[in-house]
Amino acid sequence: MELRENERIDDLSRRGYQIIQNKTRFCFGVDAVLLAWFSKVNEGENVLDLCTGTGIVPILMDARYDRGDYTGLEISSEMVEMANRSVLLNQIEDHMKIIEGDVCKASEIFKKSSFDVITVNPPYMAVHHGLQNPDYLKAIARHEILCTLDDVIRESAMLLRPSGRFYMVHRPVRIPAILEKMKEYKIAPSRMILVHPYEDKDATMVLISGTKNGKDLLKVEAPIVIYSAPNVRTEKVEEIYRE
Amino acid sequence: MELRENERIDDLSRRGYQIIQNKTRFCFGVDAVLLAWFSKVNEGENVLDLCTGTGIVPILMDARYDRGDYTGLEISSEMVEMANRSVLLNQIEDHMKIIEGDVCKASEIFKKSSFDVITVNPPYMAVHHGLQNPDYLKAIARHEILCTLDDVIRESAMLLRPSGRFYMVHRPVRIPAILEKMKEYKIAPSRMILVHPYEDKDATMVLISGTKNGKDLLKVEAPIVIYSAPNVRTEKVEEIYRE
Repeated sequence: MELRENERIDDLSRRGYQIIQNKTRFCFGVDAVLLAWFSKVNEGENVLDLCTGTGIVPILMDARYDRGDYTGLEISSEMVEMANRSVLLNQIEDHMKIIEGDVCKASEIFKKSSFDVITVNPPYMAVHHGLQNPDYLKAIARHEILCTLDDVIRESAMLLRPSGRFYMVHRPVRIPAILEKMKEYKIAPSRMILVHPYEDKDATMVLISGTKNGKDLLKVEAPIVIYSAPNVRTEKVEEIYRE
Repeated sequence: MELRENERIDDLSRRGYQIIQNKTRFCFGVDAVLLAWFSKVNEGENVLDLCTGTGIVPILMDARYDRGDYTGLEISSEMVEMANRSVLLNQIEDHMKIIEGDVCKASEIFKKSSFDVITVNPPYMAVHHGLQNPDYLKAIARHEILCTLDDVIRESAMLLRPSGRFYMVHRPVRIPAILEKMKEYKIAPSRMILVHPYEDKDATMVLISGTKNGKDLLKVEAPIVIYSAPNVRTEKVEEIYRE
């Protein structure tokens, strides 16, 4: 596999799967690993990952489940090209493809009500918050420049089949807005997990799932704590990485 | 202090404070203890506790803070009479009174925008869910028979001064509805803590606070785990009981 300037291949420590990343751009973190673990895929289901970037989330899910049919949607043609090389590198092109397109118009790109599962690790920060990264590809991955929470949840709702499942990782500060948008677009919240860097610290991430046209019966599952000491991951997170 | 049939006096293990409870009726649990710990009162602030029952929440807060002016509102005249005997028992009648009245009309009973802090441990269960307790006083404490989430949050919003603080304990399944109502009545969610019976179990309670006309900057703080083993409370919860 030929690599471009600043690219590297990282091993995913799972069934030999690898990912190509550009070390000067957005590289995956624990949020992608947790989202792939949190998102359940049953045999034969088709899965759409929005804002897929390097393709890390479907690649990790495929390494975990090996029975879904995956599509990734990404707006940057450069990222799409790199993600598709990761697909080829892992020899999974028969059941995974990365497509170039705008999440805001996802329901025009794909058939409505056609996905069993949608996953998304969207840009976390509203455009008026925080410093925007001067590197454009990093900036669009972190800030709601090209898509908002409303775009992500609205398009997901249109693309999910009835009873289809939605899985997202986001920031706790956005929980009220996330739940509001899920209600607006009829994705009933079903599971929520808070992720804390240490057991005595505020949550820095939230995993949330919902069911299209489902019942409003939210469960908040056991929290995830990332570190037991500086640079020492908890046993639970080590298990998630290994599983 | 004279006790009625089935009543007992329980020690609160804090500065000698005690509470009168009727052992055949509703007796306080860890939810009241956590709400009193979660709710912050500054010197000279006036505090209203809705659905106060035995008066346990303001009595615990007074034992903790000793500098607020407390009012409890309770619909059952029998509970009001018992709670006021607890007030006398603790000799705190100069800064605590329990008043009979309907939370649904609280904004007609008290002056609008007149409280710094409102606390509430409301009935958890929507009327159409769960078996209703045949004992009426137990039933109204557990089910939304006499007041709904909408009543509680609407009346609280009217009674809080601008920037006044709202503190509630509830069930995690109601988080979407709670956040929706807080938004509707302009109480911005500020802090949330999930309470789990064991560290690997789903949350069974949520503590949530908000600020009247505040900014929408929710923090999810470190979770509380009640038990480390059957009947063995965690060190954190023991501290909360002792503090």
